[in-house]
Amino acid sequence: MTKVFTHKDVSLHSTRDSCHVIIHNKVYNLTNFLSEHPGGARIILREAGTDATAAYSKYHPAELISNVLSPDLCLGVLDTTSVPISLKQPEEQTAGQRKSRDISGGGGGKPDLASVLNVFDFEAIARKTLSREAWVYYSSGSGDEITLRDNRQSFNRIAMIPRVLVNVSSISTTTRLLGSHCAMPIYISSCALGKLGHPEGEVVLTRAAGTRNVIQMMPTLASCGLDEMLDARRPKEGGDGWQDTWFQLYVNSDREVTKRVVQHAEKRGCKGLFVTVDAPWLGRREKDMRVKYVDDAPDIQKRETDTNGKLVNRAEGAARAISSFIDSKLAWSDLSWLASITSLPIVLKGIQCAEDAVRAARTPRIAGIVVSNHGGRQLDTSRSGIEILPEVMDALNAAGLKRRIEVFVDGGVRRGTDVFKALALGAAGVGIGRPTLYAMSTYGQAGVERLLDIFKEELEGCMGLMGVTKISEIRRDMVDTKYLGARVSVVKDFLHENAYEAMEFPTSKL
Amino acid sequence: MTKVFTHKDVSLHSTRDSCHVIIHNKVYNLTNFLSEHPGGARIILREAGTDATAAYSKYHPAELISNVLSPDLCLGVLDTTSVPISLKQPEEQTAGQRKSRDISGGGGGKPDLASVLNVFDFEAIARKTLSREAWVYYSSGSGDEITLRDNRQSFNRIAMIPRVLVNVSSISTTTRLLGSHCAMPIYISSCALGKLGHPEGEVVLTRAAGTRNVIQMMPTLASCGLDEMLDARRPKEGGDGWQDTWFQLYVNSDREVTKRVVQHAEKRGCKGLFVTVDAPWLGRREKDMRVKYVDDAPDIQKRETDTNGKLVNRAEGAARAISSFIDSKLAWSDLSWLASITSLPIVLKGIQCAEDAVRAARTPRIAGIVVSNHGGRQLDTSRSGIEILPEVMDALNAAGLKRRIEVFVDGGVRRGTDVFKALALGAAGVGIGRPTLYAMSTYGQAGVERLLDIFKEELEGCMGLMGVTKISEIRRDMVDTKYLGARVSVVKDFLHENAYEAMEFPTSKL
Amino acid sequence: MTKVFTHKDVSLHSTRDSCHVIIHNKVYNLTNFLSEHPGGARIILREAGTDATAAYSKYHPAELISNVLSPDLCLGVLDTTSVPISLKQPEEQTAGQRKSRDISGGGGGKPDLASVLNVFDFEAIARKTLSREAWVYYSSGSGDEITLRDNRQSFNRIAMIPRVLVNVSSISTTTRLLGSHCAMPIYISSCALGKLGHPEGEVVLTRAAGTRNVIQMMPTLASCGLDEMLDARRPKEGGDGWQDTWFQLYVNSDREVTKRVVQHAEKRGCKGLFVTVDAPWLGRREKDMRVKYVDDAPDIQKRETDTNGKLVNRAEGAARAISSFIDSKLAWSDLSWLASITSLPIVLKGIQCAEDAVRAARTPRIAGIVVSNHGGRQLDTSRSGIEILPEVMDALNAAGLKRRIEVFVDGGVRRGTDVFKALALGAAGVGIGRPTLYAMSTYGQAGVERLLDIFKEELEGCMGLMGVTKISEIRRDMVDTKYLGARVSVVKDFLHENAYEAMEFPTSKL
Amino acid sequence: MTKVFTHKDVSLHSTRDSCHVIIHNKVYNLTNFLSEHPGGARIILREAGTDATAAYSKYHPAELISNVLSPDLCLGVLDTTSVPISLKQPEEQTAGQRKSRDISGGGGGKPDLASVLNVFDFEAIARKTLSREAWVYYSSGSGDEITLRDNRQSFNRIAMIPRVLVNVSSISTTTRLLGSHCAMPIYISSCALGKLGHPEGEVVLTRAAGTRNVIQMMPTLASCGLDEMLDARRPKEGGDGWQDTWFQLYVNSDREVTKRVVQHAEKRGCKGLFVTVDAPWLGRREKDMRVKYVDDAPDIQKRETDTNGKLVNRAEGAARAISSFIDSKLAWSDLSWLASITSLPIVLKGIQCAEDAVRAARTPRIAGIVVSNHGGRQLDTSRSGIEILPEVMDALNAAGLKRRIEVFVDGGVRRGTDVFKALALGAAGVGIGRPTLYAMSTYGQAGVERLLDIFKEELEGCMGLMGVTKISEIRRDMVDTKYLGARVSVVKDFLHENAYEAMEFPTSKL
Repeated sequence: MTKVFTHKDVSLHSTRDSCHVIIHNKVYNLTNFLSEHPGGARIILREAGTDATAAYSKYHPAELISNVLSPDLCLGVLDTTSVPISLKQPEEQTAGQRKSRDISGGGGGKPDLASVLNVFDFEAIARKTLSREAWVYYSSGSGDEITLRDNRQSFNRIAMIPRVLVNVSSISTTTRLLGSHCAMPIYISSCALGKLGHPEGEVVLTRAAGTRNVIQMMPTLASCGLDEMLDARRPKEGGDGWQDTWFQLYVNSDREVTKRVVQHAEKRGCKGLFVTVDAPWLGRREKDMRVKYVDDAPDIQKRETDTNGKLVNRAEGAARAISSFIDSKLAWSDLSWLASITSLPIVLKGIQCAEDAVRAARTPRIAGIVVSNHGGRQLDTSRSGIEILPEVMDALNAAGLKRRIEVFVDGGVRRGTDVFKALALGAAGVGIGRPTLYAMSTYGQAGVERLLDIFKEELEGCMGLMGVTKISEIRRDMVDTKYLGARVSVVKDFLHENAYEAMEFPTSKL
Repeated sequence: MTKVFTHKDVSLHSTRDSCHVIIHNKVYNLTNFLSEHPGGARIILREAGTDATAAYSKYHPAELISNVLSPDLCLGVLDTTSVPISLKQPEEQTAGQRKSRDISGGGGGKPDLASVLNVFDFEAIARKTLSREAWVYYSSGSGDEITLRDNRQSFNRIAMIPRVLVNVSSISTTTRLLGSHCAMPIYISSCALGKLGHPEGEVVLTRAAGTRNVIQMMPTLASCGLDEMLDARRPKEGGDGWQDTWFQLYVNSDREVTKRVVQHAEKRGCKGLFVTVDAPWLGRREKDMRVKYVDDAPDIQKRETDTNGKLVNRAEGAARAISSFIDSKLAWSDLSWLASITSLPIVLKGIQCAEDAVRAARTPRIAGIVVSNHGGRQLDTSRSGIEILPEVMDALNAAGLKRRIEVFVDGGVRRGTDVFKALALGAAGVGIGRPTLYAMSTYGQAGVERLLDIFKEELEGCMGLMGVTKISEIRRDMVDTKYLGARVSVVKDFLHENAYEAMEFPTSKL
Repeated sequence: MTKVFTHKDVSLHSTRDSCHVIIHNKVYNLTNFLSEHPGGARIILREAGTDATAAYSKYHPAELISNVLSPDLCLGVLDTTSVPISLKQPEEQTAGQRKSRDISGGGGGKPDLASVLNVFDFEAIARKTLSREAWVYYSSGSGDEITLRDNRQSFNRIAMIPRVLVNVSSISTTTRLLGSHCAMPIYISSCALGKLGHPEGEVVLTRAAGTRNVIQMMPTLASCGLDEMLDARRPKEGGDGWQDTWFQLYVNSDREVTKRVVQHAEKRGCKGLFVTVDAPWLGRREKDMRVKYVDDAPDIQKRETDTNGKLVNRAEGAARAISSFIDSKLAWSDLSWLASITSLPIVLKGIQCAEDAVRAARTPRIAGIVVSNHGGRQLDTSRSGIEILPEVMDALNAAGLKRRIEVFVDGGVRRGTDVFKALALGAAGVGIGRPTLYAMSTYGQAGVERLLDIFKEELEGCMGLMGVTKISEIRRDMVDTKYLGARVSVVKDFLHENAYEAMEFPTSKL
Repeated sequence: MTKVFTHKDVSLHSTRDSCHVIIHNKVYNLTNFLSEHPGGARIILREAGTDATAAYSKYHPAELISNVLSPDLCLGVLDTTSVPISLKQPEEQTAGQRKSRDISGGGGGKPDLASVLNVFDFEAIARKTLSREAWVYYSSGSGDEITLRDNRQSFNRIAMIPRVLVNVSSISTTTRLLGSHCAMPIYISSCALGKLGHPEGEVVLTRAAGTRNVIQMMPTLASCGLDEMLDARRPKEGGDGWQDTWFQLYVNSDREVTKRVVQHAEKRGCKGLFVTVDAPWLGRREKDMRVKYVDDAPDIQKRETDTNGKLVNRAEGAARAISSFIDSKLAWSDLSWLASITSLPIVLKGIQCAEDAVRAARTPRIAGIVVSNHGGRQLDTSRSGIEILPEVMDALNAAGLKRRIEVFVDGGVRRGTDVFKALALGAAGVGIGRPTLYAMSTYGQAGVERLLDIFKEELEGCMGLMGVTKISEIRRDMVDTKYLGARVSVVKDFLHENAYEAMEFPTSKL
């Protein structure tokens, strides 16, 4: 039997020790969820005891809460006839608060979109124009960000070996990924919280993917609802259905939730199911944590004055398995269950060694893998996807499994040559993550379209100069990987960076 | 039948949508060429509907337009009796416009030429004194300029192994390149648009090459006409003809144009035909693009406000095959045709792997190859010529083809030791490109002569210290290439360059 | 027969040539010890001829002097009825003197402890808040500090190879080290002079180790007495005795002193004896020497004006074997004697090659080794412990000795991933040194506890992401060490760092 | 018959075209020597037509001119009764002229000598206190100074492998070099022009070498005469003759000059003859050339306005073989002649490969070699001595010649560990060059003594920590050279150092 609550009932639970909120006319007890909220506790506590729908909707789709929260946290429904109680003064922006800068597409405060010549430009502009909150969430990697940076550097350690005197007057970048025709071997990878950067969120990516005929992998943790994104799809040319999309899945501890989500995605026409397997624990993204700490600080400090133990709990929280909505128990043996609830091709996203790649290829119903380290956001000092790729392909080849699965790679792809390198080393396609967020956040749909156009131009130019006219002509002996693994770059040694502390001359003398 | 146009007729086509100009009394429709013009559309549009001869001549020789443009773009001839129409006010220099700094040879504003001690000095001075337009055009490489910089760095990864106690009191750097006697195993490589840096353009190089007895490779895209350059040749000592020169060829889609140009070059006495094979598509030289964008910006922006589609078209343009005058269809099979129209030795410029080198050596009438990545201006992250060279020589050797062709190398040569290294690894000679432009642009003929003298001095000094007195004594075991391929240098990571975003101390406290 | 001295007797020996002091009512002749004092001569000379107990106690435990000094330096006891003589004016702090900044735990002038997110943060805060004296003593390495920095960098040259789809919902970091149960495979390594950083000294570490159930290795040269530290132990859970600790030993030239100390440590319940074997000579820690020089300078200068010879003697002193309390004669053959005086497990701290590791494993009663270079404080350009470790394990394995001893490693451990890497390469546990000093010095016990909590969180998170739930599951094929030995990082070349001294343009011209 | 000249006769030759000078009452025609003078022409021209003895003596010993100049340049003797003619006004110091800073030993303007803790300190002080002329002459290397810096860096790429538990209470660094007893395996290598740095010149080094019992290699091009240096020797302890010294020889084109010099050195008791074989041509030391250019500039410019040809000649001059006093014809076949004129042990200084080392070892009467690249002053990008050493020792070993010769090494030795590394790799001793100049120039004899003391201390400390008590115990397996040849350090790329020229934001907008 569903319980019914008045505004007043809810208003009695407005503290850290008992925190109830109303979202879309349902009442939730978020007390225990406070420390698990990836966005920090503070942002929830501001709404404690009130109707949080507006704040919630700023970042999340309506359906998310039922997809990730344990059902028993929903206490019941709101008596919509009850009178809202104003607990606090309308929040005024304090002087010190950072203002999110203007992010509307195409104008005022940003260079003309036409002057953006390469993928890095979007990042440079995003850094200057995004809110601090969005920038650190999007740009951060885990730990010392060694993997984050190596994702990029490792492409630079691969050299191209062009062939000349080939007729390259006509070049085609089209390909098939999991059976879908694509304009190029690039897809938009899933990233959470698009509304941090753009008020409309991920539907912007959907639309741009549609006009450019590339695949968008839609994230479980999108700011927009899956249906919102799917509704934004574009009819296929020739009229046969809608643009192809994939769905990225975080398997929930509550398998029924997962089942419902997956079957809905399949029913709505998604063409692939990408199961994230590299996030049973949350990576420590310290740049992000620093910002969250500043937001949460006052409350935390109060707790600290009470007991030292609480402080420690909070610290532990950051690295703890997010058991409520990403199931840290997920194992190889669960894949047959997943296969049983859907007929979608299943792709494992986050494979990082040959051993797991071969195991995936031997698992029934697994159609592909994404060699990936989660954009450097999970385990620092793990290797870049592009470095792992040759080892994975060699192992699949040796095991006679090369044709069993499609191999994708992501992480650090910023140039057309990077795409070429990935394909030369065996990838069917590459995922682009952060650059799509930066382009979307700075110039909206037109920005993402230009981003994709730049990738296409660069890839075409690269193919032309490599003596290749079709994707299928790209071969491994067109790249030199001798020093690919030479991760000897000096990481900035911020404290001891000067080896020799030079003698200080007595200033009075010299 | 040739059509005749009046000034007024032409003046009716003064827009982006219909752009006619008069050049040397011929009328051209450049509407479709606007987006292909390597110098950008803006510079042509300024002349739309008028007589553009003066502006054209500032950068190009009279013959260029017929050598590169499709003949049907020439609509007819000018009625020279017609009255010119003044379409615009005389252009006044706007405040913000960058003034091209004084580039006259030898004086005011530059250090004394005698104080220039090495090749880098010319570059340093050029950077400070060239117009922005010339500097970015000459100095830019493609993409992230990784290959551009590696061209230089790879020489530094080769070590010298000197021999002592050899009588080196008398040293000769003379050699033969494609049969021509040269003062040293160095030639001036072809670079486009010499008039950007010096008002007289490439004839300055011709004259300096003459006094120093080195070969100039004359470019298809020179600012001076081929005949102008050939007319500047110096009589050979002994009176037997003129200084030897080579001709660099971009094969035109219109093979008749190419045939005419090649046969003219042969008739005028050029001694070698260097066919550029690494430029079927144009590299993205972004530093150059940024400057062009600024020049072109106002018009572009207007278009952008109309339709977004147009903007994208323009962006695509930059990387598109320049099909009108560099034939992207050129293939191995076309070489027999080339061989049929000339008896000049044919050299393929832009070979980047052993496979193509062997294929070239097996192709009839091919007399040589230039191992080159086009000065880092085409495909970024391709390998330096000097790194490819040993692999090429090994393959030619293994195939018994070492004596079939002469192997040249270019890219990054700045020191006498670099020349020695190239020869030790098997090159017959090395090409010098940018340094000749910098020397010419800063000090004119005297500058180029000093540049060549510096190279000769350094090469002599290097030979003396290596225990070698003649070019033919240079051997492979005189250099150490163990780490030549170790491209592990850290590319500046401009956004994420600090691994660790240090805690910000609350400033009010510390 | 014990001699008795009055204050007046002592006051007659107040010079460098005859320096007596009173400490805890005993009279010592420190004349010959002046140049051996690791803290420099000056600090002793300030007390010459007086009761130095207060100054002494600021840094050293009461028992130290008898544990390290040769007994004959103790001349006798003080006649406590005698009248103290005031030799000098009370020392006023001179203007130029650096003030030791506030180091009280947890507050004023430092960021909130909760905002400390990783181990480096403690170091950053310590650098800003410690006294200069403490900072340079703690942070310095020997020579050019190449080894110091390589200790850290070498971890970054190891890459992680995660396995996915493992149930990691429950992770345990507990392990056994030398038979003791520990919360994690980390121990607090011994460091001297804790009171430089915190007024209570090393007991702070003891208490934090207790609440977090990790082992503290108690140093011979602690500022606190061994008994003080042992008294601070916490009862074991379950009530069976006290928290486990180890004792670090510098073997004294006077073996009776060593025997007494070791047997006392054993009697008081220490569980392991770690004999430092890498310090028969003192490393040159120049940062530290520079600060000491400034303190000692005035006197030294006076001596210099007398004879040049004296100056040289002083300089020699710094690198001389500290024969008085660290026995530079200690050899393999002495280990049987050590075994004869104690039944504690004996571990050799400071092994740096496979050869010595195998020899240790073959030596009776040796229970373990610490692969270590003494935190980069002894021999510069020696290899990092983590680099040596695989070689050591391979050799032990090849000799069939892998299970004979436990192998520990220390040096540069700052991240949970570092701990994992060490274990993957064969270590049973890792030692943490400087970070504990920095945490203690900045936030006291709470700081050290947070430090340990951060290590635990990071290790758990790392294990979760590596697909490992227990310490015993960590395997060598989970890390990639291909470039571990690639010590090619550029050491800052402080004088010649610019290869090319650019031409200086005549300023009057450009 | 000797000609006699009056002051007036000489004064008629005061121009570049005819330049006579008086030195020590002899008259010389230096017209043709002007362009060969390593110190530049300008400094001679200032004295043209006058008595140059004072200026000459400032840098050179009296005997030098007869040892290096062709005898026919001496025209005759001065009529000492003739009246000097004052050609110019006494030179006043112009405002812009750099003042040589105070270089007197030990005081005013420099840190106390006792505060100098390592070898780099001397260099840092020298850089700040030497005259510009002295600093650039001493510190410069050839070309881009890649070899100069690699000489230092290559030591840092070698790692130490210490052994522990060895009785190291007593350590001896004594050894024998070419049969002479030395306090340590270090000798002072020959460097020219000591008076640039210290008014007394190289005798200062002789005296310091004497008190510290190390060998000084006395240079042909010393500022002091050989006899002056030999007269400064110290009696050997035990009274048996004088401290041992070696003589460095540049073989003169005039073999009689060489014969006279060598036989004089032998007669005066030198114990070894070190023949420089790596300087048949002069390296381009551009830092030095820039300073000389500035000094010489006015005259040069005048010439430039006349003919361009002259300018070129001058430029060529710098790299030309200095045929007048270093014989560029010297070859292996000349060594038998050298052996015939002396019974001294002959050592070849400047061997750079295994091939030449083996050849030297097979040459009769050759007693040793110095593996050296002349301090990075000759051929840039040649390898460091320490990198070549293992290859040389392997080859000698393989040829069974290891005991036939003694192998020395120099270049970049700055630490006691460097000395140890060189010995571990097979050297009998190492040469120290620039550091002795810096120590001498900053603190005179006391400075050089302290320098040697620091080396001795560091070597002793290193031996103690390596588990070695005698020089003969140093073994090759005590160092790790796996990455010794990894010369991948990034040379500063001064012009193109930023890969990515970031978009410039329109400043009016952001």
